Amino acid sequence: MDIPYVIGVDMGGTNTALGIVDARGNILYRSQVSTTDYSTGEEYAEALGNVINELIEQNNLEGKIKGIGMGVPNGNMNDGTVEKAANIPWAKTIVVPLAAMITQKTGLPCSLTNDANAAALGEMAYGSAKGMKDFMVITLGTGLGSGIVSGGQLIVGHDGFAGELGHTTTVRHNGRLCGCGRTGCLETYASATGVARSAREFLDLNPEKKSVLRDITYRNITSKDVFEAAKAGDELAGEIFNFTGKILGEALCDFITFSSPQAIILFGGLAHAGDFLLKPLREAIDHHILNVFKGKTKILVSQLNDAEAAILGASALAWE
Amino acid sequence: MDIPYVIGVDMGGTNTALGIVDARGNILYRSQVSTTDYSTGEEYAEALGNVINELIEQNNLEGKIKGIGMGVPNGNMNDGTVEKAANIPWAKTIVVPLAAMITQKTGLPCSLTNDANAAALGEMAYGSAKGMKDFMVITLGTGLGSGIVSGGQLIVGHDGFAGELGHTTTVRHNGRLCGCGRTGCLETYASATGVARSAREFLDLNPEKKSVLRDITYRNITSKDVFEAAKAGDELAGEIFNFTGKILGEALCDFITFSSPQAIILFGGLAHAGDFLLKPLREAIDHHILNVFKGKTKILVSQLNDAEAAILGASALAWE
Repeated sequence: MDIPYVIGVDMGGTNTALGIVDARGNILYRSQVSTTDYSTGEEYAEALGNVINELIEQNNLEGKIKGIGMGVPNGNMNDGTVEKAANIPWAKTIVVPLAAMITQKTGLPCSLTNDANAAALGEMAYGSAKGMKDFMVITLGTGLGSGIVSGGQLIVGHDGFAGELGHTTTVRHNGRLCGCGRTGCLETYASATGVARSAREFLDLNPEKKSVLRDITYRNITSKDVFEAAKAGDELAGEIFNFTGKILGEALCDFITFSSPQAIILFGGLAHAGDFLLKPLREAIDHHILNVFKGKTKILVSQLNDAEAAILGASALAWE
Repeated sequence: MDIPYVIGVDMGGTNTALGIVDARGNILYRSQVSTTDYSTGEEYAEALGNVINELIEQNNLEGKIKGIGMGVPNGNMNDGTVEKAANIPWAKTIVVPLAAMITQKTGLPCSLTNDANAAALGEMAYGSAKGMKDFMVITLGTGLGSGIVSGGQLIVGHDGFAGELGHTTTVRHNGRLCGCGRTGCLETYASATGVARSAREFLDLNPEKKSVLRDITYRNITSKDVFEAAKAGDELAGEIFNFTGKILGEALCDFITFSSPQAIILFGGLAHAGDFLLKPLREAIDHHILNVFKGKTKILVSQLNDAEAAILGASALAWE
């Protein structure tokens, strides 16, 4: 008999959310535990392992769980470790063999990877990429993450850290300074933070243009403000999305030359900007794509529920 | 018993060279046939099939050939076709199911892909990538080709045409006009043609600088001239290689963020420029790479013999 359920664990910077998931992507039972209330990886693994074991017992699912998948900052799928994750106190400077520790506590196989890779596996198991073997997910949140599937396999690279497309830098030579210390990284343009940054830049550079964004405290402008303004017909806000879509579209053209995906699935807050982002993005691709790839790659927006996607994505690892 | 030999076929723009290859990468017997003397794919397949059958018979190798691999312009590995290859008269505007035709003539399994993908498989079977699962080959010839292996699999994409890294365009926004009709393609800088173009640009932009390159008829300058000049200590020629290495290095940083390869293997004429190219290239990578990838990816020069590599690469397909 097939084992019917898996467990997905989404380890965030503050809390760790988990759920028991069926093969159709329904989250049946949920629980959570703090990510940061522990001073060592052992303590965290002990706490998380206990919560997992309780969740299984309470619901009489002993023997019905195929495995555990985790979405983890700086998670290395090749060896199941968390490597120097800046925002996790117990893994800030060291490598923690978290998957092995969870297996020891629960007796279940455990795999982990970063959240964008998990998102890609989630789309393949339950979402828009069902049945696809070549696609990528671009997550547009605070930064820009990427999960790339080629020939049905997640691209993780020799060290487990492939797919950092937010830090391709050539989209603008000598462009904006990035948190990584370099310049021109794609995520300084194409992310929620990037849109807010563009807004401030556009306001500065176009003092003659009216915009409702001028009524917001300058340093507090968010991508959501820009979206609301664009919806209300604010011209400058529209231009900011045009600029963002164009840069992202040009970058996607480069990504397509790499792995020629059947689809690129956009996920995260900014993906919900709809045609404000998608129209200039698709136009940039049509205009800029190498002839052999013209019209071949679909640009889709994830249909997974934002609140569930992280657990679902992580759980998809356990079906692999 | 293992079948000990394969056949590699290198279909060039004028001639098609082929050879019988053993598991260690020795080319034991060779033959050739014209590529262009035929008006249909059927006629070409008939001629090539006959030459293959003769080569096998003459050397009493019936039953000892595992299969045929072909390196073919616009070769699609997914379905074994040649798709609209501009320089092949019988495939200029149509899709020719060449692999199936060769199988029909010879009774042997046949696969094909483009030359850069074949080069990657050749490095994995016989060359510097032996034992590697994550690497890429960059071919620096007239243009820039790429073959990418991830998790032990060649990345071919949903349509069979992935890995066109010579046509990533963001390395210089609004840069040089490329033969593909777009601007800023990497191969307009990092290729033999690109170096010659840089030479003319550097001569134009630095009229005060002496250079032996000024003694060569301007439009006839080749990358080999620039290499010879650099070897002789010509300062401007050295600067041209610095410029080329820097641009290629920055582009490789983006490629590394994609698939995090253990090694990038440079192949082709320009790769033999040695430290004139490699030193600025490695410096650009060290300076420009995202921290998590620092010092992880080896930059190697192919050790395969240029004259044999195309047949070897193609033959490697037949072991797969």
